[in-house]
Amino acid sequence: MKINKILFVSTLNKEIEELIEKVGLKKECRYLTEGELQDEDLEWADAFVSFKTRSSYDYSKVKWVHSLGAGVDSFLYQKKWDEDVLLTRTICSFGQRISEYCLSYILKDIQLHDQFLHLKSTKRWNPITPKMLKEAKVMIYGTGEIGQKIAQVLSFFGVEVYGVSLSGKPKEFFTGVYTVESHFSLLKQMDYMINTLPLTEKTEKLFDVEIFSHASSIGFINVGRGESISDLALYEALESGQVRFAVLDVFNEEPLPKENRLWEHPNVVITPHIAAVTTSKEAVECFVDTLKNIEGDRHLANKVDIKKGF
Amino acid sequence: MKINKILFVSTLNKEIEELIEKVGLKKECRYLTEGELQDEDLEWADAFVSFKTRSSYDYSKVKWVHSLGAGVDSFLYQKKWDEDVLLTRTICSFGQRISEYCLSYILKDIQLHDQFLHLKSTKRWNPITPKMLKEAKVMIYGTGEIGQKIAQVLSFFGVEVYGVSLSGKPKEFFTGVYTVESHFSLLKQMDYMINTLPLTEKTEKLFDVEIFSHASSIGFINVGRGESISDLALYEALESGQVRFAVLDVFNEEPLPKENRLWEHPNVVITPHIAAVTTSKEAVECFVDTLKNIEGDRHLANKVDIKKGF
Repeated sequence: MKINKILFVSTLNKEIEELIEKVGLKKECRYLTEGELQDEDLEWADAFVSFKTRSSYDYSKVKWVHSLGAGVDSFLYQKKWDEDVLLTRTICSFGQRISEYCLSYILKDIQLHDQFLHLKSTKRWNPITPKMLKEAKVMIYGTGEIGQKIAQVLSFFGVEVYGVSLSGKPKEFFTGVYTVESHFSLLKQMDYMINTLPLTEKTEKLFDVEIFSHASSIGFINVGRGESISDLALYEALESGQVRFAVLDVFNEEPLPKENRLWEHPNVVITPHIAAVTTSKEAVECFVDTLKNIEGDRHLANKVDIKKGF
Repeated sequence: MKINKILFVSTLNKEIEELIEKVGLKKECRYLTEGELQDEDLEWADAFVSFKTRSSYDYSKVKWVHSLGAGVDSFLYQKKWDEDVLLTRTICSFGQRISEYCLSYILKDIQLHDQFLHLKSTKRWNPITPKMLKEAKVMIYGTGEIGQKIAQVLSFFGVEVYGVSLSGKPKEFFTGVYTVESHFSLLKQMDYMINTLPLTEKTEKLFDVEIFSHASSIGFINVGRGESISDLALYEALESGQVRFAVLDVFNEEPLPKENRLWEHPNVVITPHIAAVTTSKEAVECFVDTLKNIEGDRHLANKVDIKKGF
């Protein structure tokens, strides 16, 4: 496929334009905000490139849409997609970034950071012994690019890692992979659960009263999408102790509204959707690689399967 | 060497006795506290086994002394040693434990845990981006069993790891290894420094005004020995910003006295000498392995070099 005219729609256009110029891309480019975008631009373009989109554009006019983020729910979720249009997404260092994020909070827990901070505040010397990672069991929801990278990192420390996926197919670095329906009985033994699932019709409100009812004093980390969680079910699970603590990077509404009671829960860590930030530099690198692969008719590891939604 | 009579001197004797009985060790054993120990016991014994010792026993009467801890300074530091007596120490999972301890505090820093906790307390959504581990540079003091394990773990994440050792000899997982004298000029570029050195005449008060004067906004982690640090120099370096924060597991005096002002410094984490706890189970396993290796005339990876002091 030949791509000549590229339309960038982003609030970070200046940065992106500079980076694209550095690369010396020999293509016609337009850099617009969503407000500036006209129907004519979409008719002009071969490719549409954006972090996410609030509007429902008619992408059937372009050949290729590329998401500068990992998630493509803003393009697909509850929208129709013309399957003749190629959709790709950014993968790059997300897996590594998210792994370090998740590991940091598992280590915070297992190394008793809060307990030692409390002991310090009262000048008490109480030698309690941290457990080792190899004693921990983790259930990862999603065994794709990101879930598998987390599994690889945790396995390096001897963590026993289990996975949940649509197919339940075995994957490297997972002791076992299960479907949602078949994984419930394992949850009681788990120390941590990590959601990396994309938002699709199948993952919406997946984490509900039922799933948490199978957990016991678990640490819950959400680096997938806020919409996969029932906030009410999570809050009740925190109160009942089924969930011992939650680390949340994504929310149903972002920024998280001030009146949301998760802000004030002592056992909740809130981070502002930073676990897998795409730096403009990485996003442009991944975009350029993808463009080369498309024009060279090579395999696209980051092509979105429209039916699956990721 | 044949070992038949073993003297255990520890406050954890009950646990140790049970574990030794489980193993089914066919040796004569005496389990005593330091208070109960008589000269006659040392004359009786082939081997003396203890976590540490407060007294200066005359070990020349036994063939082998085994430390149930990693450090042997309580046996050697400012004491004389008869080189005909074999001295071994526990190595086992220390490296792994200490690595997880150090990594947890590096990740706490790099993943901005404190910043996000503060933002949460004021319900502010401010998407600051954590750096990745591969952007960090770490100087590890000590390239032995423990230092090298930390280097291996950090290298797995792409951290650039440098080492300081007596010899300055290159070692696997270190980008470069330097002597104390030749490493100063590198310190300015480092993000973290980790002390794993044993206490010897050469490492006493090694971390003084000079060493900290070469650092700039560094994170300092001490999992070696408290006596290697000048508390005054560290405190001043914290105040001047040469040291951005300190994570201290070991101290000149333990438990750390309530009047020590490190307790109240906001940029100091204090943990009660737990980074490399030996569980009785691990200690006994390592002891039994060492005994087998001694009786089988095999190489002892945990033999102490008396001249070096570790």
